[in-house]
Amino acid sequence: MEQDHSTDEIRQAAAGIAENYNDYDVPMYGSLLRLPERNAVIDILHDLQKLLFPAYFGDPYLTRLPPQQYSALLLEHIQKKLCKQISLALEETPENITAAREICSAIIQKIPDIQRYLAKDLTATFEGDPAAKSKMEVLFSYPGFFAIFVYRIAHELYLRQVPLIPRMMTEYAHSKTGIDIHPGAVIGEYFFIDHGTGIVIGETTIIGSHVRIYQGATLGALSPKSGQARSDTKRHPTVGNNVTIYSGATILGGETVIGDNVTIGGNVFLTDSVPANTRVSIKAPELKFREAEF
Amino acid sequence: MEQDHSTDEIRQAAAGIAENYNDYDVPMYGSLLRLPERNAVIDILHDLQKLLFPAYFGDPYLTRLPPQQYSALLLEHIQKKLCKQISLALEETPENITAAREICSAIIQKIPDIQRYLAKDLTATFEGDPAAKSKMEVLFSYPGFFAIFVYRIAHELYLRQVPLIPRMMTEYAHSKTGIDIHPGAVIGEYFFIDHGTGIVIGETTIIGSHVRIYQGATLGALSPKSGQARSDTKRHPTVGNNVTIYSGATILGGETVIGDNVTIGGNVFLTDSVPANTRVSIKAPELKFREAEF
Amino acid sequence: MEQDHSTDEIRQAAAGIAENYNDYDVPMYGSLLRLPERNAVIDILHDLQKLLFPAYFGDPYLTRLPPQQYSALLLEHIQKKLCKQISLALEETPENITAAREICSAIIQKIPDIQRYLAKDLTATFEGDPAAKSKMEVLFSYPGFFAIFVYRIAHELYLRQVPLIPRMMTEYAHSKTGIDIHPGAVIGEYFFIDHGTGIVIGETTIIGSHVRIYQGATLGALSPKSGQARSDTKRHPTVGNNVTIYSGATILGGETVIGDNVTIGGNVFLTDSVPANTRVSIKAPELKFREAEF
Amino acid sequence: MEQDHSTDEIRQAAAGIAENYNDYDVPMYGSLLRLPERNAVIDILHDLQKLLFPAYFGDPYLTRLPPQQYSALLLEHIQKKLCKQISLALEETPENITAAREICSAIIQKIPDIQRYLAKDLTATFEGDPAAKSKMEVLFSYPGFFAIFVYRIAHELYLRQVPLIPRMMTEYAHSKTGIDIHPGAVIGEYFFIDHGTGIVIGETTIIGSHVRIYQGATLGALSPKSGQARSDTKRHPTVGNNVTIYSGATILGGETVIGDNVTIGGNVFLTDSVPANTRVSIKAPELKFREAEF
Amino acid sequence: MEQDHSTDEIRQAAAGIAENYNDYDVPMYGSLLRLPERNAVIDILHDLQKLLFPAYFGDPYLTRLPPQQYSALLLEHIQKKLCKQISLALEETPENITAAREICSAIIQKIPDIQRYLAKDLTATFEGDPAAKSKMEVLFSYPGFFAIFVYRIAHELYLRQVPLIPRMMTEYAHSKTGIDIHPGAVIGEYFFIDHGTGIVIGETTIIGSHVRIYQGATLGALSPKSGQARSDTKRHPTVGNNVTIYSGATILGGETVIGDNVTIGGNVFLTDSVPANTRVSIKAPELKFREAEF
Amino acid sequence: MEQDHSTDEIRQAAAGIAENYNDYDVPMYGSLLRLPERNAVIDILHDLQKLLFPAYFGDPYLTRLPPQQYSALLLEHIQKKLCKQISLALEETPENITAAREICSAIIQKIPDIQRYLAKDLTATFEGDPAAKSKMEVLFSYPGFFAIFVYRIAHELYLRQVPLIPRMMTEYAHSKTGIDIHPGAVIGEYFFIDHGTGIVIGETTIIGSHVRIYQGATLGALSPKSGQARSDTKRHPTVGNNVTIYSGATILGGETVIGDNVTIGGNVFLTDSVPANTRVSIKAPELKFREAEF
Repeated sequence: MEQDHSTDEIRQAAAGIAENYNDYDVPMYGSLLRLPERNAVIDILHDLQKLLFPAYFGDPYLTRLPPQQYSALLLEHIQKKLCKQISLALEETPENITAAREICSAIIQKIPDIQRYLAKDLTATFEGDPAAKSKMEVLFSYPGFFAIFVYRIAHELYLRQVPLIPRMMTEYAHSKTGIDIHPGAVIGEYFFIDHGTGIVIGETTIIGSHVRIYQGATLGALSPKSGQARSDTKRHPTVGNNVTIYSGATILGGETVIGDNVTIGGNVFLTDSVPANTRVSIKAPELKFREAEF
Repeated sequence: MEQDHSTDEIRQAAAGIAENYNDYDVPMYGSLLRLPERNAVIDILHDLQKLLFPAYFGDPYLTRLPPQQYSALLLEHIQKKLCKQISLALEETPENITAAREICSAIIQKIPDIQRYLAKDLTATFEGDPAAKSKMEVLFSYPGFFAIFVYRIAHELYLRQVPLIPRMMTEYAHSKTGIDIHPGAVIGEYFFIDHGTGIVIGETTIIGSHVRIYQGATLGALSPKSGQARSDTKRHPTVGNNVTIYSGATILGGETVIGDNVTIGGNVFLTDSVPANTRVSIKAPELKFREAEF
Repeated sequence: MEQDHSTDEIRQAAAGIAENYNDYDVPMYGSLLRLPERNAVIDILHDLQKLLFPAYFGDPYLTRLPPQQYSALLLEHIQKKLCKQISLALEETPENITAAREICSAIIQKIPDIQRYLAKDLTATFEGDPAAKSKMEVLFSYPGFFAIFVYRIAHELYLRQVPLIPRMMTEYAHSKTGIDIHPGAVIGEYFFIDHGTGIVIGETTIIGSHVRIYQGATLGALSPKSGQARSDTKRHPTVGNNVTIYSGATILGGETVIGDNVTIGGNVFLTDSVPANTRVSIKAPELKFREAEF
Repeated sequence: MEQDHSTDEIRQAAAGIAENYNDYDVPMYGSLLRLPERNAVIDILHDLQKLLFPAYFGDPYLTRLPPQQYSALLLEHIQKKLCKQISLALEETPENITAAREICSAIIQKIPDIQRYLAKDLTATFEGDPAAKSKMEVLFSYPGFFAIFVYRIAHELYLRQVPLIPRMMTEYAHSKTGIDIHPGAVIGEYFFIDHGTGIVIGETTIIGSHVRIYQGATLGALSPKSGQARSDTKRHPTVGNNVTIYSGATILGGETVIGDNVTIGGNVFLTDSVPANTRVSIKAPELKFREAEF
Repeated sequence: MEQDHSTDEIRQAAAGIAENYNDYDVPMYGSLLRLPERNAVIDILHDLQKLLFPAYFGDPYLTRLPPQQYSALLLEHIQKKLCKQISLALEETPENITAAREICSAIIQKIPDIQRYLAKDLTATFEGDPAAKSKMEVLFSYPGFFAIFVYRIAHELYLRQVPLIPRMMTEYAHSKTGIDIHPGAVIGEYFFIDHGTGIVIGETTIIGSHVRIYQGATLGALSPKSGQARSDTKRHPTVGNNVTIYSGATILGGETVIGDNVTIGGNVFLTDSVPANTRVSIKAPELKFREAEF
Repeated sequence: MEQDHSTDEIRQAAAGIAENYNDYDVPMYGSLLRLPERNAVIDILHDLQKLLFPAYFGDPYLTRLPPQQYSALLLEHIQKKLCKQISLALEETPENITAAREICSAIIQKIPDIQRYLAKDLTATFEGDPAAKSKMEVLFSYPGFFAIFVYRIAHELYLRQVPLIPRMMTEYAHSKTGIDIHPGAVIGEYFFIDHGTGIVIGETTIIGSHVRIYQGATLGALSPKSGQARSDTKRHPTVGNNVTIYSGATILGGETVIGDNVTIGGNVFLTDSVPANTRVSIKAPELKFREAEF
């Protein structure tokens, strides 16, 4: 009968799938698994947007509160959720329980600093883009500013060796913006990203202050000569202060240093250092012009 | 005690955050703020999808109505939401209250025209992509078509000087598609975008009809010689009719004009005008072939 | 009166819109239309994530079940939804009703195989990226792995000529990741995508096993010499085993074959075949260095 | 270990429960069961409220439609849901599939009549209660009117031998109002219920027009002399036209007939017929008055 | 064809229904109708529960605020919703716009008083019921206390001649508890209702302080001698202080006065006044005992 | 200014309300309060319905599981929620933490027994009501059966001295059905309630097996001679086996014993015991018949 056949089919596929769970060399099934929850991690980011930019993302009902009450209320909420997720991300040992509490506490104390950084990033973004009509427009809409906001949060968690969560955060921003900043990167103040789609900033990148970067630019690693790259070395470049990196530029290698006050032109491909106060551009590939055929 | 310590920590961070609200030179907190609502703006776009493409995005329950009733129902709904958001985006003066009403009315009247434009964009998309199996597939799935739809709506708001909302709309599309069209750009009919990720079309770009553009292409501004670019000048190129711009091409500058019937090859980098009826391609960079080492 | 004027305006616009529905040469309005439902198709993908990676995406409440019960439960759920969507995507004929059932049954039976493929893709991703801290991080966060997951499902539907749905699936992944893999492409095991934004893999591409591909790479079609490209020819390249394609590389054409053990360097632009065991790189464009002006 | 103990406990209880499913002599478990869905049945009642009293329960968004479009839209919606529930309530035979369609069609055609009945019940309620400030108040708030509305729908289903659903409907009203009208009762026009809590109207009751009934009144069955009552006999009273039954009155028995123009006083207990044009009251029990003790 | 037949049927029924809308002599259809919204009125009651009994009904997230901030936040929320509903309930005239604002303001100012009354009702309830384990149990569960809470709110609106809303509120409580208190009744402090199902307290009832009333008791109107009762007369009894009314007792008539310190026994039926300091009971109906037949 | 005035008004009322929180002699405000959550308690009841009557209340998606898996899954879910609520209801001491776990464990083990009891109650209900068309109808719709179900659960919690929750449960049933059974009552098997509205069964009532009880019947306490009744005495009657209590009957007093095989007629009022094998009825009050006046 059709019905039974269908059931057999399901049963057989289910058996195959259940068996496959064991073929993964990471935990794949089981009610006792402790892992962070993806939606909760994303919620924390949105709660932080509400906390830091209440006029743009907050609940109007709650913004009737005095600002300090408002921020305390959201902070407690964020603290509770964040502590839970951090403790899920760490293995469950007595030391880690203490560690989770301390990390969470440190993050909470760091938030006002992050907020001050973001005020500077906002200024850099507004001043950097002639198309920006107002800072409000930047706050509401600019993907670059959103990606920086998420990175600055995730970086604090990365610094404190929290597993999984920092990358969950920056990949969320990557998904929304096309901007892929590894939480391990170190980025100075007044950072500005324009358009942003396709930007990649690798784990061991170091970036100074007042740096501007455009769509499609890569701060990446050289391909390893042989075998796999070592993950504990500096594999990505160092960028000085007051540097502009135009669209499609590629800068590779852990020993590559871009000095202060440098401009890297569009599509430049660099694996070597550039001294301070330099403008680098490609000698544009020769163009061929032919009359179009119809 | 642990409890009290935790409370102190929160209280201190909250005080810092509340104080920081004042460091932003845009309104950041307060129950009397009038700002458009991000989710409402996005909802308007989805309601417009339902209105313009009922078979693909509409509620089957409502599409039992005669089509004119259906569209009137959705139009009233959209009108109400849109007027509210426009009036929130404008400063609250008696003139602006009238202005908001008039703008909204103009947009509503414009929708059938936009719909006709989109029918042509759909044709261009279907005919332009050999992988497109049907126009239905384009309607359901193509990011390029979605980005054009959002741009055509946002552009009407931009033309009428509505603050914030046009950019909120196009950045929503940017987030979903990786295609960044500024609402200020002027784009003719039968526009086709293929793949699309990484495309940037700047604010003062002018594009003719029957233009095709591929992933990673940029229609951008030259970097200003010194200081900040002036936002009220034409900073982005002009593209004629029947032009194809292949992937990764970059065309920069407000005085750069691409004539009719031009083809710009992949990765071409242009800061100068191109006469009509021309095919431009790069002399491909010389390749080096080595035997792979193992 | 204002009220009446507004009503006229709506009525007129609604009439225009309703008339325009007929100008589309695809069905645009009507309660009898049979089309797949976009949200249902996306839900199926998320249900498959729950099925294949329960510890990361599943409902903790349900993962208390024995794994085989869990997978059977989800499989039945997926089967029901998938069959419905497939039957909506096919025209309603007696043969198609049988066909829908058979296709769905074939897909269900295929899922354990897909799962085994994905275990290999996971290994390739973890081993390919020195920044990956654990396979868990890849499962939770990596856009490349998500895009491959969706592609592997969509490809099975494409192989069985299901209209609309395969592309709805891969465009969903494209929207989330910036990675645009056509469901028609044929991709071997141990596939690894890094960063991913801007990658395009065309419909008739064939890719071997142990291939790595980086952000912004294109496996595309040559532009047709004249008129529209034929959709039934092989238009996209063939890539052998153990090939690495670095960021921004472009490989075009249906007759272009990349041999085994080849490395294609960043920004390489290829329209010709490459023999096995070769490293291809561009002779980097000459750079110009000037002192920066202030 | 605690964990294992807990699991044993669950396992044992689960085994007991699963076994008990078989002890019920009605179907209690199984994926192939066809039964109406409780929430769907309740939704149909609320959809009917929206249909019949749009200004009070309808969606303002939809009431912008012309009234005939509005009612057609809701009718189609109700028809679809109702047909599904009726077909689930009937055993699945070819005859029943036809029967379900015919019943549903008959109900749909009956709705305008029910609506006219309810207009008369509304008038009776408003005129019957000096505390009623307006008919609007009755429509919004009166439990008696709600119970009559539900009864009039359920009765049509009862007449057509639909199992389960009529009683699900009237018990929903019972739960909301404390008024228990069996769907089998036959009730004339201009029916008025005041307060209502505790009213019971049995299955074979027949009630004329212009009847008023107050809280706590029972129109019930005599207790059977021996064994179980026969369910196919007239067990409940017959009430003529223009009758008032005050609170707490009890009228029992299938052969008990209350004539036209009769008033039954509070707490009257009747098992015999009353001729027309009669007022029946109890000789009030003698009261005892004592001084209160403190 | 089946399809068309079905459509005809719908069309015809819809036409009948649309026509019937006009047969109601209250507004029944139209987008310009201004009527209070049922769900909003009920939400206000639940918001008031949150405001007045935060530990039992409030959101734990918000109760981290200092109590005064918490109550201000909820008050503003309630004020906004309540003002809107009141203004919808009043006809739209310039005077009424002012009136709505003043009424709402008066209600807000009255809430602390209502809260103090409820503290006394809580005490009376806890002390009156030997089965009450704690005041917490009363707050969480007792229908009598809930009915009194709703009555005390609705009464304030009734006093200020707000149409529709007071009765919507008390009928909501009636639906949840079976206790039907008209918002016009005047009820003193320390009021206690036990069990409560079936209690009716009419519009012009006046009740003193420290009164206890049990399930099924009625404080009602005498049936009018002829025609309809006048709605502007005192139709319901007056009850003094420190009175107990046991279950099933019925007290009728606007001139009936129950003096202070009176106890009315179960099932007593009264249409005359009772002097102070009296216990009234019925001479129990004689019982008949027979041996049961089997 | 209007704005400020409004704010003053809110501020003042808020201050009053916050102060009033302290006037309640139960905890009324504070983030550290531990109290059961009303919605969670109600959810547990609905989960138990799903567990015990899957065909009628369960999720069809889950009932595809083998019955034992289904019940284990729901049991674990219920256990988790129930344990949490019990531990919130108990004061937080080390002994209570153990106690909560043990109580919860005992309840879980008891569920199969409760289920068997309910099968008998179902039989009694179906056989007792000639209007019942099927046991399915009873399961779906009968308020009496629902009230018994809730009572049997709540009683187990009451027996184990869990505060608050048992009454929250039975008052939920009271609200839905008008049937008020105190969780402390002891009720034998094959219990049948017909119609049910207004029934009251007090805390110390004891009821045998095969008892039938109709709407409006009360098993209550005598009013105390003076002062408050003692809550630790038997205040409510004892009812033997095979007893029928018709509508409106009142039986009061802790020493009142109704023997086996007794029938209590409608409206009988009893404060004394009745020997076994007796039928008690009232000598019906004399009726007065007058011709109606018009």
